[in-house]
Amino acid sequence: MPVNLPLPQPGDLTSVAGLELGIAEAGIKKANRKDLLVIRLPEGANAAGVFTLNRFCAAPVTLCREHLQIAQDAKPGSGIRALVVNTGNANAGTGPQGMANARRTCEALATLLKCKPEQILPFSTGVILDQLPIQKIIDGLPRAIAALKNDAWGDAAQAIMTTDTQPKAASRTVNIQGKPITVTGISKGAGMIRPNMATMLGFIATDAAVSQVILQRWVKDAADASFNRITIDGDTSTNDSFILMATGASGVNCESGVGADVLRAAVIEVAQQLAQAIVRDGEGATKFIAVQIDTARDLVEASQIAYAIAHSPLIKTAFFASDPNLGRILAAIGYAGVADLDVSRIDLYLDDVLVAKSGGRNPAYQEADGQRVMKQNEITVRVELNRGNASTTVWTCDLSHDYVSINADYRS
Amino acid sequence: MPVNLPLPQPGDLTSVAGLELGIAEAGIKKANRKDLLVIRLPEGANAAGVFTLNRFCAAPVTLCREHLQIAQDAKPGSGIRALVVNTGNANAGTGPQGMANARRTCEALATLLKCKPEQILPFSTGVILDQLPIQKIIDGLPRAIAALKNDAWGDAAQAIMTTDTQPKAASRTVNIQGKPITVTGISKGAGMIRPNMATMLGFIATDAAVSQVILQRWVKDAADASFNRITIDGDTSTNDSFILMATGASGVNCESGVGADVLRAAVIEVAQQLAQAIVRDGEGATKFIAVQIDTARDLVEASQIAYAIAHSPLIKTAFFASDPNLGRILAAIGYAGVADLDVSRIDLYLDDVLVAKSGGRNPAYQEADGQRVMKQNEITVRVELNRGNASTTVWTCDLSHDYVSINADYRS
Repeated sequence: MPVNLPLPQPGDLTSVAGLELGIAEAGIKKANRKDLLVIRLPEGANAAGVFTLNRFCAAPVTLCREHLQIAQDAKPGSGIRALVVNTGNANAGTGPQGMANARRTCEALATLLKCKPEQILPFSTGVILDQLPIQKIIDGLPRAIAALKNDAWGDAAQAIMTTDTQPKAASRTVNIQGKPITVTGISKGAGMIRPNMATMLGFIATDAAVSQVILQRWVKDAADASFNRITIDGDTSTNDSFILMATGASGVNCESGVGADVLRAAVIEVAQQLAQAIVRDGEGATKFIAVQIDTARDLVEASQIAYAIAHSPLIKTAFFASDPNLGRILAAIGYAGVADLDVSRIDLYLDDVLVAKSGGRNPAYQEADGQRVMKQNEITVRVELNRGNASTTVWTCDLSHDYVSINADYRS
Repeated sequence: MPVNLPLPQPGDLTSVAGLELGIAEAGIKKANRKDLLVIRLPEGANAAGVFTLNRFCAAPVTLCREHLQIAQDAKPGSGIRALVVNTGNANAGTGPQGMANARRTCEALATLLKCKPEQILPFSTGVILDQLPIQKIIDGLPRAIAALKNDAWGDAAQAIMTTDTQPKAASRTVNIQGKPITVTGISKGAGMIRPNMATMLGFIATDAAVSQVILQRWVKDAADASFNRITIDGDTSTNDSFILMATGASGVNCESGVGADVLRAAVIEVAQQLAQAIVRDGEGATKFIAVQIDTARDLVEASQIAYAIAHSPLIKTAFFASDPNLGRILAAIGYAGVADLDVSRIDLYLDDVLVAKSGGRNPAYQEADGQRVMKQNEITVRVELNRGNASTTVWTCDLSHDYVSINADYRS
């Protein structure tokens, strides 16, 4: 069961002018399952993305990087015109045939949309090591195009799900130059989540006009503030992709100035909401946990310690059990790899409860207070290192029986 | 259920001349539980150890390091005379009071054994962040001493267990200078296992005569070939300690030459058997998995990739389910952090089955073959990087429902 993750209602999601979404059942892995999504962008739109750092990156990730580079070098008007996403198969670990299949997908969609194959960005998510059922995808594309409409964000969020139990979507509207500007996005992911540059799949669009260069900067900033701060199981996927699009259909240019600042902040907010939604719907998650490291010497050590805590199976099972076995958190801080860490300066809080003070148990700490916090389904672990001014926060979930069940049974 | 871990029978363990072991019930955490062990060494014996690199190391670890340093600097005859081990409480995250309690334990035992406190090595294992019930330990020591005998290795292996389901012990006898020389050891550990320098607790002794300097070299070599190559959950304990002792009671000097080589090899064999026993009895383990990385450029990258595979919860749950979802292994290789890795050269084997060839699915691979290997309870994952001559092997186990149950319920 997801943790405090409300189902997006039709009214919650604002359409992005100029952008259409079309969903189809292509029968890629299972029958009667919406597994193919096409997102069409208007001429003059821009897109930018960040992708997995996994060396075994999927064929579509390689192709996305290639096509975005072409778009950046090309003259205006020959930019990205569509995205195509399939679930059920990751097209990763598939060698040259996998690359050929990703290219064929782009070619087929380009023919239908009357653009060039390099104006298409392809995405795949699902099982690794199986070849894409390319004919099913090609056959499904005309149906997805026939279904294109402006207000299908909710359906699109459904279509990109794999082991997700709920669709993930978010919208913000900001006022820029006296006009309402929309930022709407969707994401998917519930396992193999420790994004490195981006999450499984995340797509955010705005109707403002923003160049690819600025979008590229923002998509990196937004990933660093959102998808790059979550972990479920510490496994970095082969297919992580996060794309930011600007249709320009509002006629409002947000390239620089106050408008750019306001829009960038809205993009980050939507990205954070989508990233946190992934953790709230983490495989088997029963709790949403923020790990906040304060007064670190720098961001690197803050992040090392935050992830050591957020990845520890022992800590995650203790959260599942609501057991304030908090020595496990001290142990994780100790093995995080910060060589000159002075543990005698460390304070550990569970929400507002001071558990460990100066590296040892706080004499005033009562197990009942720790127990009270551990029973909540939203918990903040806060560590004060008392050696600098850097802070970071990472979001994660607990490790439950259901995580094992879901991953033991994923393909069956 | 442990994986192919035979219970040590009384006849399996050879006593080490000169060394005695005494066990008592001190009631540290639970009643009627053997939780206190004293190992007495004869005058002239030597000991050496390696310990956790966790910055939050336990008070007894700090004291062990201090006492071994004193022993090394002292004149012959004032070396280590006894080890004292308690379970039920780790004496970690306990600040100055924890250090005082560890010192009091050594003082109490030294008084009873008529030696100096710095001739005692203390060890604790159990819950972190609680103060040691020092009076119970002091009260239990005379009973442990009264029980001292030469052939209590099996009982000692029992006494140091925490979440272990079976005691872990091993013996080898080698012939040196025409005499039988014994190497016998015990270990414990089932969770919070990703030793860094040493395991939870491991104690190996021989009746050969070996200096502390040579023992120190061997204990490091043996740890690197055994306890430093296992992982259950990736959590490095605060209390990891591995001690190698030489009583000299056989009268055979193994300081150098062929005798030293033979003895060193026997020590490594016993250490490997004890380390593998920890994995076989890993919390919730149903399978024993060797991860072997071949033709790597160097040991560092081989080890990075081996641990990425061995730590992945996704891979470990797939092993639990006997599901040959082997793309997960490629994904782990890809995110192991080897920046210039050419994935198109990588081959992946499950035992003798070639699953992936040149970075993609082996065209001849049949799912039934992968399935057959995955159903075994002992499996070797072998990765050929095809870029050098370095190899390493790491041992791990699967991730099952019982791991979650055991760690959710540990303290209750």
